[in-house]
Amino acid sequence: MSDFSFKILATDNKARCGEISTPRGKIRTPAFMPVGTAATVKAMYPEQVRGTGADVLLGNTYHLMLRPGAERVERLGGLHKFMDWKYPILTDSGGFQVMSLANLRKLDENGVTFRSHIDGVAHELTPERSIDIQIKLDSDIIMQLDECIKLPAPKEEIKRAMELSLRWAERSKNAFNSDMAKSKGRSLFGIVQGGDDANLRLLSAKGLADIGFHGYSIGGLAVGEPQEVMFKVLEETIPALPHDKPHYLMGVGKPDDILGGIERGIDMFDCVHPTRAGRHGRVYTRLGSINLKNSRHKDDIRPLDEQSNNENCTRFSRAYLHHLVKSQEILGAMILSQINLAYYAELTAGARDAIVKGKFEEFAATTRENWEKGDLPPL
Amino acid sequence: MSDFSFKILATDNKARCGEISTPRGKIRTPAFMPVGTAATVKAMYPEQVRGTGADVLLGNTYHLMLRPGAERVERLGGLHKFMDWKYPILTDSGGFQVMSLANLRKLDENGVTFRSHIDGVAHELTPERSIDIQIKLDSDIIMQLDECIKLPAPKEEIKRAMELSLRWAERSKNAFNSDMAKSKGRSLFGIVQGGDDANLRLLSAKGLADIGFHGYSIGGLAVGEPQEVMFKVLEETIPALPHDKPHYLMGVGKPDDILGGIERGIDMFDCVHPTRAGRHGRVYTRLGSINLKNSRHKDDIRPLDEQSNNENCTRFSRAYLHHLVKSQEILGAMILSQINLAYYAELTAGARDAIVKGKFEEFAATTRENWEKGDLPPL
Repeated sequence: MSDFSFKILATDNKARCGEISTPRGKIRTPAFMPVGTAATVKAMYPEQVRGTGADVLLGNTYHLMLRPGAERVERLGGLHKFMDWKYPILTDSGGFQVMSLANLRKLDENGVTFRSHIDGVAHELTPERSIDIQIKLDSDIIMQLDECIKLPAPKEEIKRAMELSLRWAERSKNAFNSDMAKSKGRSLFGIVQGGDDANLRLLSAKGLADIGFHGYSIGGLAVGEPQEVMFKVLEETIPALPHDKPHYLMGVGKPDDILGGIERGIDMFDCVHPTRAGRHGRVYTRLGSINLKNSRHKDDIRPLDEQSNNENCTRFSRAYLHHLVKSQEILGAMILSQINLAYYAELTAGARDAIVKGKFEEFAATTRENWEKGDLPPL
Repeated sequence: MSDFSFKILATDNKARCGEISTPRGKIRTPAFMPVGTAATVKAMYPEQVRGTGADVLLGNTYHLMLRPGAERVERLGGLHKFMDWKYPILTDSGGFQVMSLANLRKLDENGVTFRSHIDGVAHELTPERSIDIQIKLDSDIIMQLDECIKLPAPKEEIKRAMELSLRWAERSKNAFNSDMAKSKGRSLFGIVQGGDDANLRLLSAKGLADIGFHGYSIGGLAVGEPQEVMFKVLEETIPALPHDKPHYLMGVGKPDDILGGIERGIDMFDCVHPTRAGRHGRVYTRLGSINLKNSRHKDDIRPLDEQSNNENCTRFSRAYLHHLVKSQEILGAMILSQINLAYYAELTAGARDAIVKGKFEEFAATTRENWEKGDLPPL
């Protein structure tokens, strides 16, 4: 039925190195997925994104359903053709952005109604409609609609949202299965909710495993809680997920979140952080992170990282990058987005290699040490 | 003393095909020079600019003296190194932007004082300081400081500004010559002023020729006057310029201005239009010009130009470009800036080829016909 498959190539303690197969190509895990919100990874050509080492992109159902619209993308040949990206695309369900961006939203058992933040037009998103949209976008990896709440939150509220998400998981699976022809080759991921409550997380994970999905996402994290809470939830939740399926930590994060997630058994990540931070002057390399807006860089003739394989890290001085950022030049956003995505890809590639060699712990220690000591001090 | 030279390879009526040699490379003329205002051609990597066919960039003295500052650029190794562009750079004198952008400007015989539009800091620009700044930027082709006024204007006012510019031309030449070591390999262009008055233009051209420059710019056009006035001024002015030196029409223009300028004997052009218009959704190709913001493109699956050698014209649908423009995505600015600069380069390359073959008139007619009939109609 499905051309989707996942195999684990190596494990090292809880860390896993694997490979997801899809009809549009392989995804090496642990994988970081750049976010292409509105059918573009901001400030980058698709081949530049690919060039950073990305195997898969994330597309946002909420943004795309509002503009240009799912039916339009379908008529135009699907999201891959629309944006000229030939490789796998994972789409979220739209639920997260409805909660964070849309106006006048009303949630009930059936789904959620809301008004577009762009033009105020009313829309409805149900588990079935979300699957429908994601198929129209021609997504390779589809997410169930869930309800994601901010932390901290009262236990009742977390429980209610988790149980609703579980019922929506079942409806999503039914919708996905209802048209085998359209679903062929695609995969559907369930989403674990339950906030910071270990028991609710376990109930959610078990409920999803009983329904059965191609992969399991962990949602409702990186929504305001401290990193230690997030890591604790991962430690409590991941053992309850089917071992032989991909584990995807949604919306995470900074490099040290990624490293900590891999350490705890996560296979997939996505986050706007590397591109958004890049547009605002923050850069990540193996030597740590600096904000290029800071005036201490204005006379610094050194490149970001002389030893880097990434030309953008070697060809431009920090003074030039500072100038671009201060002048709000588009080229600054282009360069820093590229550098950040390339570093995220380097980080996950390094992790994969280390896991295969059974040396993940050393890799993580060395990586953190390089970040700490950094070679990005003031002049 | 100077490594600057210009030779005319062919003429066809008044149109000329030539080659400027500089220590940093050749400039094939007629040439369009993309504008890299603040040490970047907006929304493009330097190699992408080069890839469109650009032999030379223009840098803005006004912007660069304010940020990052001429002395800083000098300390950092000059503008070419700063922005990683190895080829020739022409800089303007700063005068035009002082008049159009700066605050509290005060002009007298000595020069102009003003406050930065960025931070309000007071600056002074004199003919000597402008040369000094342009040398510190490591410019290859330097412009004299002039006073450029808007049209229409009273004849007295035009005359006063022209005569002042002529006195500043002489001071600029002296400043340029005063340090042979620093000026070596560079060239200095005088700027013809005189508004729409044929007599004043002739006096200006003659005065400049008497002083003697490596090239002659025509300033004070494209400042509000109709195209026919601009063309008339060119027809009256160009015969008075030294034939064997480059003729540069400053700040011009749209493709039909370029074509008309070449027809009348212009060798060099610069304008922010292709990149600025691109950032706002307007695209130029051999098939004419369209505004991609227009909603008639939203379902148009056709690429901009199927027959183009420019991948950006063939790989993306008009619907996708419309979507990027409407969503104010940076990628839209990147793609349309590239397409527009590539078309400007294609236009000047076509003109050069036609002049060499003695077929410029046919080339101009065919080019205009293609623009008119266009292949960019609504669906």
